[in-house]
Amino acid sequence: MSLIVQKYGGTSVGTVERIGAVADKISTFREQGHDIVVVVSAMSGETNRLIGLAHEIQEDPEPREMDVLVSTGEQVTIALLCMALKKRGWDARSYTGGQVKILTDSSHTKARIQEIDDNNMRSDLKAGRVVVVAGFQGVDENGSITTLGRGGSDTTGVALAAALKADECQIYTDVDGVYTTDPRVVDSARRLEKITFEEMLEMASLGSKVLQIRAVEFAGKYGVPLRVLHSFQDGPGTLITLDEDFDDMEQPVVSGIAFNRDEAKVTVQGVPDTPGVASRILAPIGEANIEVDVIVQNVSADNTTDLTFTVHRNDMAKAEAVLLKVAEEVGAGGVSTDDKIAKISIVGVGMRSHAGVASTMFNSLANDGINIQMITTSEIKISVIIDERYLELAVRGLHTAFDLDADPRAE
Amino acid sequence: MSLIVQKYGGTSVGTVERIGAVADKISTFREQGHDIVVVVSAMSGETNRLIGLAHEIQEDPEPREMDVLVSTGEQVTIALLCMALKKRGWDARSYTGGQVKILTDSSHTKARIQEIDDNNMRSDLKAGRVVVVAGFQGVDENGSITTLGRGGSDTTGVALAAALKADECQIYTDVDGVYTTDPRVVDSARRLEKITFEEMLEMASLGSKVLQIRAVEFAGKYGVPLRVLHSFQDGPGTLITLDEDFDDMEQPVVSGIAFNRDEAKVTVQGVPDTPGVASRILAPIGEANIEVDVIVQNVSADNTTDLTFTVHRNDMAKAEAVLLKVAEEVGAGGVSTDDKIAKISIVGVGMRSHAGVASTMFNSLANDGINIQMITTSEIKISVIIDERYLELAVRGLHTAFDLDADPRAE
Repeated sequence: MSLIVQKYGGTSVGTVERIGAVADKISTFREQGHDIVVVVSAMSGETNRLIGLAHEIQEDPEPREMDVLVSTGEQVTIALLCMALKKRGWDARSYTGGQVKILTDSSHTKARIQEIDDNNMRSDLKAGRVVVVAGFQGVDENGSITTLGRGGSDTTGVALAAALKADECQIYTDVDGVYTTDPRVVDSARRLEKITFEEMLEMASLGSKVLQIRAVEFAGKYGVPLRVLHSFQDGPGTLITLDEDFDDMEQPVVSGIAFNRDEAKVTVQGVPDTPGVASRILAPIGEANIEVDVIVQNVSADNTTDLTFTVHRNDMAKAEAVLLKVAEEVGAGGVSTDDKIAKISIVGVGMRSHAGVASTMFNSLANDGINIQMITTSEIKISVIIDERYLELAVRGLHTAFDLDADPRAE
Repeated sequence: MSLIVQKYGGTSVGTVERIGAVADKISTFREQGHDIVVVVSAMSGETNRLIGLAHEIQEDPEPREMDVLVSTGEQVTIALLCMALKKRGWDARSYTGGQVKILTDSSHTKARIQEIDDNNMRSDLKAGRVVVVAGFQGVDENGSITTLGRGGSDTTGVALAAALKADECQIYTDVDGVYTTDPRVVDSARRLEKITFEEMLEMASLGSKVLQIRAVEFAGKYGVPLRVLHSFQDGPGTLITLDEDFDDMEQPVVSGIAFNRDEAKVTVQGVPDTPGVASRILAPIGEANIEVDVIVQNVSADNTTDLTFTVHRNDMAKAEAVLLKVAEEVGAGGVSTDDKIAKISIVGVGMRSHAGVASTMFNSLANDGINIQMITTSEIKISVIIDERYLELAVRGLHTAFDLDADPRAE
């Protein structure tokens, strides 16, 4: 008998029939004796419909009123799900974010949770009720409705699980778990039984769009076991948990391979190697609201160096324009760009204690005749930039090189 | 410079364009220097859409969750109207019923207002903001969302006007005022400039569905001047106000003629004239949830009497079945029914002090050869039941007989 927080996204509650299917799933857990708190999103399409209405009126509506508007989406779902649960004989009670209450700051449309009052939820659970909470929303200290931003329902789920010290936070979605890499690229990609929060963060930020990165951070911070499951298929999903929950035996060196082909490479050549020059180059990029991902600067030769970084492809032209001006100011040699690149990252907490991971990676790429343009590393991740034409080839080779084809964590 | 509460119904805010037109109207009042509090309904069709979703899940959904569901309708409108006002350069702030807050009892789907906190509204008005409040909804002492029932937005408007001691509560609707009678029946029907609360109550309950009867009662109780206006046409509408606001000169004897053809007549014949017999007959009707309108019992002859009353036509068969049993028990002669009847009422506070109103009425009917089946009177109303075939003829004759064709209150 556990206390489980379950979160169902917009697709999972997209029609009255699907809300019924969610109620059936919850029924199964209740029959097993579990206490359940459910977090739901707006029915799919509803949030976009509401935003559309607002934009018919005003191009840039006031954030406070946007939150009043879009928060109705989840409010509809909580009521309908409670009805579906009642119909199945379960007592249930709905709460908006403000009713819980989930106190946030006043940053409308992107508010952050400050405090959660768990009194109502606890007394409902005690009385045998299923608690149904509107995701994505809260209330500020003035009583104004706030929203956590898109995907914020995952964060609501994790935050409630943390506040209630739930045994598990289950995120129901349209995939059956987290994979070693994208199954559309590598046929032998496998669902992971377990992954650590840190690995998940590296995977998520690299494009495995299974979970909101903010929710994973939150779960890691409060040690909330997080499980990704398919809404309409049975299966154990993937458990995202603490490093210490792994036996050494089962901890693989590399858990997964993430990749991204949305980036472009920008190089400022022949930069005078003087203190503060990197900042003088990157500051105007930040001011132009261009986000930078990988940054590489090698040791200098002849008192000049090359500074290379990656930006989103859509920002490449803008970055080049900024840099042509900056290059002149700092006395650099020139600016070159390339948007035909891909980034591949191998991720795994196991690599901390294993020497030779980098050489295995570089060797695999070399065997496939792939040239490495840039390398960056962190404690649990090694990323390389290569020609985008070799992306699939590289990922397949690495998947085999790190024994991911035969998932050591699978039962 | 006045403080005006304006209420716009679902048709008035039925599309984004209409919400824009409402914002234009509010702009005009703001330009004239008035402080404005706006109460809005859900966009037309939205409440029915939400109720439809609920009924797809459950035939008889829990009232608490119905309120959570349908209250989103008005919440959408307040946000959109605020955006439309901002676009026109006016500062505005939206409030749900719970945010105001409008405290109600816990009778979900038909809650009654207990208290209104006017602090937020007052400080917004002071800061030059238009205050936009969701109609039809409140919050109980547990923080659960409640609704006032269909048409409750009128009540919200009047209640806010009373709490704020507003100079006027304007109800915008799809008619341009209150008429002396139904213009579809009498061509020469005229819009009234003024009408008293009492008259309006008698008119409203008799089928002039311009205003919610509860809102009129509320306005009368707190002396809130109420004005009915057309949403999209200019004009002074009809002011509903206190008796003392009329000069004697302008006070007409009869203000209007209401009628109703939804009723049926039920008679228990030959009832033994003993104390308590009327109650023994009517109690089972009440227990069967049949609403009774007019009741007439004449003086007895030969120690028996006839008891006649009217019910809704849909309830006639049910009433007859109940009465056949009761008639036997009390030893009555029999039961007869008739659903080919119509009720006509003349209404006017002026008739209190004018003798001869009844005879003018009966004379008018007699001149048209119309037989009167039943008569009931109250201080400001005389109602007759006639054969429904003569309804239009009777109303037109009475409209002329009481000089309503040339409205004495028109300018």
